[in-house]
Amino acid sequence: MVLKNLLPDLPRGPLTRFRDQATFDWRRLKVFLQGEDNVAFTKKMVETLQKDPFFHREWKTGTLEQMRALNNRRWAKIVEYDFLEMGDEGGFPDMEKNGAFLTCLEQYDQGLAARYSLSALVFSSAIVSMGTEKHKALLEAAQSSQIVGCFALTELSHGSNTKDIRTTATFDAGDFVFHSPDIEAAKCWSGNLGQSATHAIVFAQLHVKGVCHGVHAFVLQVRDLRTLESLPGLTVGDMGEKPGAWNGVENGWLMFNRFRAPLSALLDKGSQVTPDGVYQTKHKSRQEQQSSSLGALSAGRVGIIQKGATAAQLAAVIAVRYSFVRRQFAPSEGAEEVPVIDYPLQKHRLFPILAGGVVVSIFQKRFNEHFINYMMKLISGEKSVEMAEISKEVHALSCATKPVSTWMGVRGLAEARLACGGHGYLKSSRLNDLRNDFDPSQTFEGENYMIIQQAANFLLSLDSQKAPKSPMASIDFLAKKVANFAGFSGDILRDAVEAYQWLVQYHLAEASAEIKRNVSKGMSSFDAKNRAQVAHCQPMAIAYAELTMLQWAVDVASEASSDLQQVLLKICKIYALANLEKHISAFYMGGYCSGAEFGKTLQEELSKAEEALTVDAVAICDAIAPDDFVLHSNLGASDGNVYERIFREFQKTANARPDWWPELVTKLRSKL
Amino acid sequence: MVLKNLLPDLPRGPLTRFRDQATFDWRRLKVFLQGEDNVAFTKKMVETLQKDPFFHREWKTGTLEQMRALNNRRWAKIVEYDFLEMGDEGGFPDMEKNGAFLTCLEQYDQGLAARYSLSALVFSSAIVSMGTEKHKALLEAAQSSQIVGCFALTELSHGSNTKDIRTTATFDAGDFVFHSPDIEAAKCWSGNLGQSATHAIVFAQLHVKGVCHGVHAFVLQVRDLRTLESLPGLTVGDMGEKPGAWNGVENGWLMFNRFRAPLSALLDKGSQVTPDGVYQTKHKSRQEQQSSSLGALSAGRVGIIQKGATAAQLAAVIAVRYSFVRRQFAPSEGAEEVPVIDYPLQKHRLFPILAGGVVVSIFQKRFNEHFINYMMKLISGEKSVEMAEISKEVHALSCATKPVSTWMGVRGLAEARLACGGHGYLKSSRLNDLRNDFDPSQTFEGENYMIIQQAANFLLSLDSQKAPKSPMASIDFLAKKVANFAGFSGDILRDAVEAYQWLVQYHLAEASAEIKRNVSKGMSSFDAKNRAQVAHCQPMAIAYAELTMLQWAVDVASEASSDLQQVLLKICKIYALANLEKHISAFYMGGYCSGAEFGKTLQEELSKAEEALTVDAVAICDAIAPDDFVLHSNLGASDGNVYERIFREFQKTANARPDWWPELVTKLRSKL
Repeated sequence: MVLKNLLPDLPRGPLTRFRDQATFDWRRLKVFLQGEDNVAFTKKMVETLQKDPFFHREWKTGTLEQMRALNNRRWAKIVEYDFLEMGDEGGFPDMEKNGAFLTCLEQYDQGLAARYSLSALVFSSAIVSMGTEKHKALLEAAQSSQIVGCFALTELSHGSNTKDIRTTATFDAGDFVFHSPDIEAAKCWSGNLGQSATHAIVFAQLHVKGVCHGVHAFVLQVRDLRTLESLPGLTVGDMGEKPGAWNGVENGWLMFNRFRAPLSALLDKGSQVTPDGVYQTKHKSRQEQQSSSLGALSAGRVGIIQKGATAAQLAAVIAVRYSFVRRQFAPSEGAEEVPVIDYPLQKHRLFPILAGGVVVSIFQKRFNEHFINYMMKLISGEKSVEMAEISKEVHALSCATKPVSTWMGVRGLAEARLACGGHGYLKSSRLNDLRNDFDPSQTFEGENYMIIQQAANFLLSLDSQKAPKSPMASIDFLAKKVANFAGFSGDILRDAVEAYQWLVQYHLAEASAEIKRNVSKGMSSFDAKNRAQVAHCQPMAIAYAELTMLQWAVDVASEASSDLQQVLLKICKIYALANLEKHISAFYMGGYCSGAEFGKTLQEELSKAEEALTVDAVAICDAIAPDDFVLHSNLGASDGNVYERIFREFQKTANARPDWWPELVTKLRSKL
Repeated sequence: MVLKNLLPDLPRGPLTRFRDQATFDWRRLKVFLQGEDNVAFTKKMVETLQKDPFFHREWKTGTLEQMRALNNRRWAKIVEYDFLEMGDEGGFPDMEKNGAFLTCLEQYDQGLAARYSLSALVFSSAIVSMGTEKHKALLEAAQSSQIVGCFALTELSHGSNTKDIRTTATFDAGDFVFHSPDIEAAKCWSGNLGQSATHAIVFAQLHVKGVCHGVHAFVLQVRDLRTLESLPGLTVGDMGEKPGAWNGVENGWLMFNRFRAPLSALLDKGSQVTPDGVYQTKHKSRQEQQSSSLGALSAGRVGIIQKGATAAQLAAVIAVRYSFVRRQFAPSEGAEEVPVIDYPLQKHRLFPILAGGVVVSIFQKRFNEHFINYMMKLISGEKSVEMAEISKEVHALSCATKPVSTWMGVRGLAEARLACGGHGYLKSSRLNDLRNDFDPSQTFEGENYMIIQQAANFLLSLDSQKAPKSPMASIDFLAKKVANFAGFSGDILRDAVEAYQWLVQYHLAEASAEIKRNVSKGMSSFDAKNRAQVAHCQPMAIAYAELTMLQWAVDVASEASSDLQQVLLKICKIYALANLEKHISAFYMGGYCSGAEFGKTLQEELSKAEEALTVDAVAICDAIAPDDFVLHSNLGASDGNVYERIFREFQKTANARPDWWPELVTKLRSKL
């Protein structure tokens, strides 16, 4: 009854009868997955946005200039609404609430979410983690949005290889002088920098008295707060158009021409330069110094795992709801056509996306709890063996799961568009736009193919002689060799977990052996590792990510009441089997199994699990779907009135002629 | 020397040294793949477009209205230039030249290509294949672009299931009365219909004196030629925004409200209605009648196979050229950073796309020759057992290869964007736009997942007792059971072909058995087949397509001179192994092989083949790349001056303020 107040009935329509079939209450699943407070928070936030005409949308692309102006205005409104109740003081918001807030903004418009978080969160976190007392005023100004911050690391010719960026900051007579040696050193991709950032975190090679001390982070003012003109010694500009919602974000570029800044520009928690030019550092090595200045990036990475889950959820909600409404072909002459979700192939295309969206989101929530815990300890200055261990595990797990999650999300959106056929291609389906919007999540905050190698390196670095034991328990299974397949146990989820554990061990052994072989042939360690990526390192890291996400989701499911537990385990099963299926060849090649049984059983069990999920699919979508206002899809709205909604759009153009009709008529008539 | 005149040197830059390494002359490969006449034709066409300011482009998205107006204007120019030298008479162009013309237009802008071909080719072909003498004037008017034609089959609630469309054409007192019973019967997705079509091919259920005779095709005038107003009894409108270049195409919708048309509206080659209401048909069955009216679609399908190849080629050209220029990470401290193409993983991501673009394009060219031959015989009225056989094989092969090709193309564009990292996401890379542009090729002219089932049905329908023998020889291998794997022969291409043949046979046997089992359990044939899609029918049809494309490409390669043959066989090898790799699990599950050898050898041979292609990769790109003007990508231009080109775009915004700067400053200042 209370839940019904929080989450009223969804509008009746063609989906109602499918919704009513479910074995569980979608409201309870929603609250289980998101938390009641977050559901309430999001509801209030959506109501506020919905009342505000600035947040209404049509399925019409504006010009770049219009999108920028609108995004800026919406951002100002978001700051004004102060959903996180930050007041004027700054500070960091409640992390749970912050997650709900960002997810809702991202579902609504990723450009808007980025506009906000790049300044209030990314810029601010960099100051917190690397700055000192002298940067406090700036921090507060950023957190209360009195300045606009951005984060400038990437250069035109350096992205993943951050340690070789080429912007320099040279100590000179008590100041730092910033300089870009050539166009390839231009900072780029810095969100908010193109048109509005007043301040920037800038990474540069620090030179003091002829010695280069490597990459350090600085905070610089880049535009005048009164006129928004860029400061002398800087050239700042916009990177131009990109796909989709990211056009709302001004990704900027920046070049320095002997730009002077005071010593206080250095974010000096780890390293200082004295007014007379002495460089001092707390770090033991250049590498430690660099990883400390780039550590600020991993918070972003943990957050981005959720983007993949959100993308998969939006894909599934739109395509699954549509597939219950869309009918095509009758089993026999004269019979009623069947909903396309009735086709086993359609279930096979969509339910793994739905399952992925749920499983990864559950995983991310738990991972984020671990991460916040870790950050708290880090900020409080805790140093211990366990902290060092957890730092490595957090890094490895985020480097493995961020790629796996974002690939899943973007591929899910592509498949969902196809599964919706032609109508999926309408702008009003929102699927292509969403794919464009989520597409860069595969590249930013660590390019997927690059960072997954870091996860592989972590696994390769483990001492195989010593039983590994990790704070989050994600690698404990490596201590004991998993035996080859000897038949199914009757509990397919347990079997899947075991198979995954074997798979990681197999790839780990093969990768290590290959690298060793390569080195013994005279290859450098760089080449030796590169050669082992395709066959073993990358599949190993993917399997490690999928295994961990699955296990944590199963753990969380076991905490639910029995009706929810049942549906969550159905979901976990599909996630496990659909992903395991992609690895089948390795199980055979590695000798885990032989004969048809193993592979066939996995496929058959998957097919059964997809069949079994059908009755609950609409209700699962209801549990994860944002409000229709946020979802903004004619194919995915909760009432299922697909054709009416599409046709309503159609009618806006009934019998209208284009402006250029006389031009066309003249062209045609001229020949008749 | 003559070739140097036709294809002058490419501009020098960072790619030059890689271009110079190649084992062959890119000009000769280009001419081999495209034909010298086509290369010359395309060159002239590009020069013409390049001189015309209307065809210049910036990386800036216009509004829907602007895109439409521009597309209409460019279309008028294209008609005026009369590249195909059609004159004012109409008629069909030389098919070879027409292919070169359309490929060039598609590389430039698919929306423009569609605007042209939907009227001059699709509309016209429908009249040729289904109309009679009385439709000749209309045909000539369409072919010489004096009217604008469109093709209206799909309805809001019926796409793939064409035979159940619900628009009616009822004979009434010597006329036909067209009617749309409700909004779900609204015609939609009809390109050109939204704003400019004057005439439409309309499919409707024909009712005469109370009897429904099924779907028939009609040609109707829909807009006034002088005013472009829609005719009374019709409501016509535009479907609104879609992604990318398709915004240039006005996909329209159309509803009838007891719209009257004369008897001559019926395209009556197969069936007639007399003035006093007698229905006469040449077709033996309703099914034959329906497939004859929908036969016009298969020409489109054969053409679309090339779209997939074009998409893969554009993806590969942009990403491979960029990967030779982009450097990231040095093997050791202080060493020069290496081009990212040096990473085996990068080759593994990109070379299969490059190979696919070449192989499928070679296949399509040959298939198109067969198809034109077949169409000529069909139009000349030839009827024979062989014609019936070839008709089935053409249908099956186009239904198998169109999906496989277009999936490959769109996935290739997605992967290419990722392989170019952040800069791939710039509009000026063109990769996201191209992905959006090619995306619908997976759905139109037969939704991929649907039509591939028709290819599977064809294979399932073959009488396993009788040795099949097909006119194009694509199924001859089914006559003899392929033995299980017994070791590699030393000729990996031959081994790959044999493995593919086994694979098709395996899935065919398994699919037949499963369907039989399902039927024996009491399932309808509809359900029984649907259940066999995921595990066997779809993989069988995919394997059949890949096998045939590979074999035909190998055949064509063997006709080349030895230097070209060598590089073409390298390409075929990568195509074979990269695609075969996705099927490895089936080989093990089906008992073709066991132990590590088979799978590992495939993977290792693929890795070697990718390594071996590196030296030729830039030159292969040069052979398939369109002119820089058409390619229109800052990452993929032939000079390789990536950073200079990107930076040139950047500078257009140097130190510019947005219009809304005062708004932002006020917002910030208010709190400081």
